[in-house]
Amino acid sequence: MKCKRAVILLLLCMLIPMGLAAEGVAEKAPRPLAEIDEDDSCLSCHQAVSPGIVQSWRLSKHAFAGISCAACHTGHTNDPSAGEHFGFNVTSVPSPNYCAQCHAEEVRQNSRSKHAWTAFIGHLKPYYEKARSMGLDPFSQETAKRLDPDQIAKRTVSPLFPDSGVLKMTGLLDRPDYEHNNVNLGCAQCHGTFVVVTEDRTLKGWPNTGIGRVNPDGSLGSCSSCHTRHQFSVEEARKPHTCGQCHLGPDHPQIEIYEESKHGNIYDASGEQWNWDTPAGEWGTDDIDAPTCATCHISGFGGQLETTHDVGERLYWELQPKRSVPQWKNAEEVEDLVLQRVSDQKSAEAGRVKMKTVCLQCHSSSWVEGYFEEFDKVVNDYNLLWDYVDQLLQDAYAKGLASKDNPIDELPEIYHYLIWHHSGRRWRMGAAMMGPDWSHWNGAVDTIMINLGSMQSDLEMREKLQSLESK
Amino acid sequence: MKCKRAVILLLLCMLIPMGLAAEGVAEKAPRPLAEIDEDDSCLSCHQAVSPGIVQSWRLSKHAFAGISCAACHTGHTNDPSAGEHFGFNVTSVPSPNYCAQCHAEEVRQNSRSKHAWTAFIGHLKPYYEKARSMGLDPFSQETAKRLDPDQIAKRTVSPLFPDSGVLKMTGLLDRPDYEHNNVNLGCAQCHGTFVVVTEDRTLKGWPNTGIGRVNPDGSLGSCSSCHTRHQFSVEEARKPHTCGQCHLGPDHPQIEIYEESKHGNIYDASGEQWNWDTPAGEWGTDDIDAPTCATCHISGFGGQLETTHDVGERLYWELQPKRSVPQWKNAEEVEDLVLQRVSDQKSAEAGRVKMKTVCLQCHSSSWVEGYFEEFDKVVNDYNLLWDYVDQLLQDAYAKGLASKDNPIDELPEIYHYLIWHHSGRRWRMGAAMMGPDWSHWNGAVDTIMINLGSMQSDLEMREKLQSLESK
Amino acid sequence: MKCKRAVILLLLCMLIPMGLAAEGVAEKAPRPLAEIDEDDSCLSCHQAVSPGIVQSWRLSKHAFAGISCAACHTGHTNDPSAGEHFGFNVTSVPSPNYCAQCHAEEVRQNSRSKHAWTAFIGHLKPYYEKARSMGLDPFSQETAKRLDPDQIAKRTVSPLFPDSGVLKMTGLLDRPDYEHNNVNLGCAQCHGTFVVVTEDRTLKGWPNTGIGRVNPDGSLGSCSSCHTRHQFSVEEARKPHTCGQCHLGPDHPQIEIYEESKHGNIYDASGEQWNWDTPAGEWGTDDIDAPTCATCHISGFGGQLETTHDVGERLYWELQPKRSVPQWKNAEEVEDLVLQRVSDQKSAEAGRVKMKTVCLQCHSSSWVEGYFEEFDKVVNDYNLLWDYVDQLLQDAYAKGLASKDNPIDELPEIYHYLIWHHSGRRWRMGAAMMGPDWSHWNGAVDTIMINLGSMQSDLEMREKLQSLESK
Repeated sequence: MKCKRAVILLLLCMLIPMGLAAEGVAEKAPRPLAEIDEDDSCLSCHQAVSPGIVQSWRLSKHAFAGISCAACHTGHTNDPSAGEHFGFNVTSVPSPNYCAQCHAEEVRQNSRSKHAWTAFIGHLKPYYEKARSMGLDPFSQETAKRLDPDQIAKRTVSPLFPDSGVLKMTGLLDRPDYEHNNVNLGCAQCHGTFVVVTEDRTLKGWPNTGIGRVNPDGSLGSCSSCHTRHQFSVEEARKPHTCGQCHLGPDHPQIEIYEESKHGNIYDASGEQWNWDTPAGEWGTDDIDAPTCATCHISGFGGQLETTHDVGERLYWELQPKRSVPQWKNAEEVEDLVLQRVSDQKSAEAGRVKMKTVCLQCHSSSWVEGYFEEFDKVVNDYNLLWDYVDQLLQDAYAKGLASKDNPIDELPEIYHYLIWHHSGRRWRMGAAMMGPDWSHWNGAVDTIMINLGSMQSDLEMREKLQSLESK
Repeated sequence: MKCKRAVILLLLCMLIPMGLAAEGVAEKAPRPLAEIDEDDSCLSCHQAVSPGIVQSWRLSKHAFAGISCAACHTGHTNDPSAGEHFGFNVTSVPSPNYCAQCHAEEVRQNSRSKHAWTAFIGHLKPYYEKARSMGLDPFSQETAKRLDPDQIAKRTVSPLFPDSGVLKMTGLLDRPDYEHNNVNLGCAQCHGTFVVVTEDRTLKGWPNTGIGRVNPDGSLGSCSSCHTRHQFSVEEARKPHTCGQCHLGPDHPQIEIYEESKHGNIYDASGEQWNWDTPAGEWGTDDIDAPTCATCHISGFGGQLETTHDVGERLYWELQPKRSVPQWKNAEEVEDLVLQRVSDQKSAEAGRVKMKTVCLQCHSSSWVEGYFEEFDKVVNDYNLLWDYVDQLLQDAYAKGLASKDNPIDELPEIYHYLIWHHSGRRWRMGAAMMGPDWSHWNGAVDTIMINLGSMQSDLEMREKLQSLESK
Repeated sequence: MKCKRAVILLLLCMLIPMGLAAEGVAEKAPRPLAEIDEDDSCLSCHQAVSPGIVQSWRLSKHAFAGISCAACHTGHTNDPSAGEHFGFNVTSVPSPNYCAQCHAEEVRQNSRSKHAWTAFIGHLKPYYEKARSMGLDPFSQETAKRLDPDQIAKRTVSPLFPDSGVLKMTGLLDRPDYEHNNVNLGCAQCHGTFVVVTEDRTLKGWPNTGIGRVNPDGSLGSCSSCHTRHQFSVEEARKPHTCGQCHLGPDHPQIEIYEESKHGNIYDASGEQWNWDTPAGEWGTDDIDAPTCATCHISGFGGQLETTHDVGERLYWELQPKRSVPQWKNAEEVEDLVLQRVSDQKSAEAGRVKMKTVCLQCHSSSWVEGYFEEFDKVVNDYNLLWDYVDQLLQDAYAKGLASKDNPIDELPEIYHYLIWHHSGRRWRMGAAMMGPDWSHWNGAVDTIMINLGSMQSDLEMREKLQSLESK
């Protein structure tokens, strides 16, 4: 009897979850939450002041392993951002140097990547070049205070700032009340700001989590770009939309290409059923049905290759420049990744071998070889077309149909830019990652039919007008 | 022995779900479904005739609370859409007046919002102005029958209907067989139709669930725009793609901006694990890891502020007009939201305080203050650029390079429109919601390099031709 | 006592899943995995060589039903792609003929669809026409070897290859080192390649899973386009992003339209809670809250109509051509779907009746009739506009403002193309599938204001220059 009652009780217990869900939504298991040490004064205060970040941390592996606020926020000796905060010495900018206390190898990998250097390769390049030319240390707070990298970026006319040419023409670029602040809320949100600590310890270039952020301690990068504080979840970093925060849009639509691809389609259809938190190095074909960005570019997938945080390591081609070349050497192999772009066939080939190692876990070698062969042809096509386009602009300059002095204000210059920087990348990248509409319609067709077609037509019109005017 | 058997049986029961799933898909718990009262003649008939809506209702809170068809569909006395249906007096257009029977405060909030007024602010504005100028009640069925708002929208030349200028030029706008029906299946699907009940009780402007729908009973809006019938789920209304039904595309890509943002990235990575049906007012940082649209603009998040269905209430800037200004007063504060657009610094500032109250639950005050400061600079930049662009068009009119009589058929007019209505909004909105590519590439760069660059080039060409022709 | 202990044990067992999840992620039930027969030499080898495909198969219904590699990969007698592979006779191109061994009716339905014929209707059309004109069998390996369909596609100037006109002008189209390979990694990835088996049994046109692939055995299509090998999951095929692999982008953005629609919004909000693996013919309103692509175009939804793999069967309009007409007869009703496009009012009307049968399971008849009426008006509008645009180009040819010899290299020709092939389809398709921004902004407004507005302006400029030059 007693036993029967126990069993009935048990059965009732089993029905509870169903009962709870009585209002139309199937009940979910609550996510495990780490306990809070009430003696931790960071936590007890922030739980009231900013409960979201405490909750986020309580969901993290850090929390379950007893790694709490002070472990990452206690200011380092040489970090100008560190300072007093209610009796503690803290920084609000834990740089990769802080993460390296436990994750040294990951930080080292990232440091040699274009990710870490992307502010200096991007909108902070004019500042970097100027500092170097003056013999100054471009990483130091002193140099930044002296030269003001943000203002250099906002006032320079260059295709690096593609709106600068027309802005110059309108006069706005030189007006002090025009802030040109899309440099900050555009470029720098992904590329990273130079974070400068002012006299009164407020931060310039803040808030920012750009992946190439120049930190007050002189280090490059922001790990929380992809491992969002304060969960720092491997699941998040493995999911495609994390990369899609920056890898999207007219100039490098990797997330859109992925979404179109068969890989992305399978992720959309069944990704929620996959295993996302398998430890690094063990994650493999048993866990997921199709690769995400991280699978191919970062993970030690299937134990067949080493994990890397140097995201260029498995690539053959540089697909972003005006003319594609085999991958540059990484930041550990050159003196300076900004000023020295050394294309290196050998490491490019090694990169492709690594990438194929991932592919081959699901595809036959004839499949893999065949695809890469076709992809290489597309890159070659683009390069040939680019040579034609670039010559067309040089000819236009020579004929006086456009003027070189403002390099990015006349239509032929604008189409020239759109071809290499926008549609020409889509053409190449769509082919790289199996997104046919991106390679064809938004790539080759946009480049050739629309941009080059319009450029040719504009030049013809200019030539006719020139000839009529000289009559 | 018996006990052992019972336990074994129990263990077997526990294995059943796994057994059921033997064909490759992990089994899901079935969603709870309310029972059907077989005496309810609405339900028993519609279960055969349109099973989808009955099933949908059975999943709703309404169903579990015993609120069935008649509660919302029984026609109100003054509602011209009410009428006989198999012996019952019903309407197929339950307006916000019907929802207000139980949800009065939510309907009141919504009524003062731009959402409720968006048909009259949008494509039905010419009708509204005409009715007002004739001293007629623009909300009444009689006025609508007399003036035909749909036909006014389809035949007026105005940048409100940005294809109307070129359509006029082609002659199609005046051809009776050209219906110009993208006004209905385009504009009115989001903004709402004027639903008119004809003599024989059929409905014109139907089907429609536009959020600014003008209902036969004279009320404005359609609650089911966001709380889709017949589940009316708070989960759905809290998810971003519900807002994304209308807030997308070249002119206000809020959903795309959200998807790019860190907020959207976290939603994509872990949203399926969050709590979506926590009661209103209790939803907070314990439930979700990042905000959705509703969190910031509507919810009484974390119990720190009041829930509102006036979606403009927490905003400082109007980002949609040609020139951005602090928020207009809402429909309760002016006589007429269509004809009186009163920018009000005070309530705009109060709105920003509310918004910051949401931000501060996860971010430090220096983070929040810093971001808004940068955002305001972007809006200021846009305004300065706009002044330049608008002057450029006025100068072109003055020089005879374009003609004012058809306001939207010549290229300079078209670029002028694209700048404020499309790319210039992306520039501002991308900055507002942390979508850097939308602020930069699809915003500032599209505005300045592409649209303004093309406009300048077109004007130069026109000027040269004018001068050659006058030789 | 024993009993009590057993119950306690059981309770502990029930707690295990919670315990396992201690690191911050709610534990998921593992997906059932079929056992591997260790005597199966395909499996035992491929488990080491390409573990991903074995894992994928182990998740399939095929695996649980004992259908393993040999069942689908054993080469058919008349299949030139079949050959020796470690002692077995296998093909790596299991065509629809292979699938038809078990799924004959589905293959038959697909064979009469535009899906199966889409390579020949698309980029392989010039090859097909040439083969027919020479009296050759366009399906045979011999003809393909003789004529080389891939090279014909890559070297022909035609709006079928919209970049070909400008490429011709640049000289690149005729340069042997210019591969024009976006035809392969663009067009053919969706439309399908002609897979040719060379002398040494390597495959040309490989890898490829385009839905209109011409297989070595002469059959058309690739079932794994939508039912990805090796899971062949009905769940995947029912989810919208599977169709979105090809139905996206500037020329037919069905997935983007779906995402905007109320249907897509509901899918985004609650789709993960729906039943996706209900057997074909039983799937209905009890399983899902809103339709996906498959629901309306393929499924025997709610048991109210027959399942079909002829995706055009339920459509009234052809929305892709320059001028919309009622659906063509399918490939079973004409001698040749490439050369004979017979618009058939009768079967188009039958198609609409079928589509309405789906709609009516969730919508009232006035709702359904009303929507289709509005949609038809939009198609009619587009057709009238198209007549105007086409006449405009013919007039331009007549006046010498553009030249007919290269049909797709001058701006008026390019706008003419963009209008029917890109924006004009978005206009019609957005209306068909309830995506108002696609019908309005990206459709009608892009067509009329931007494309036609620019075309008119360009023609005026050309006319002025012509007149100035002739002075």
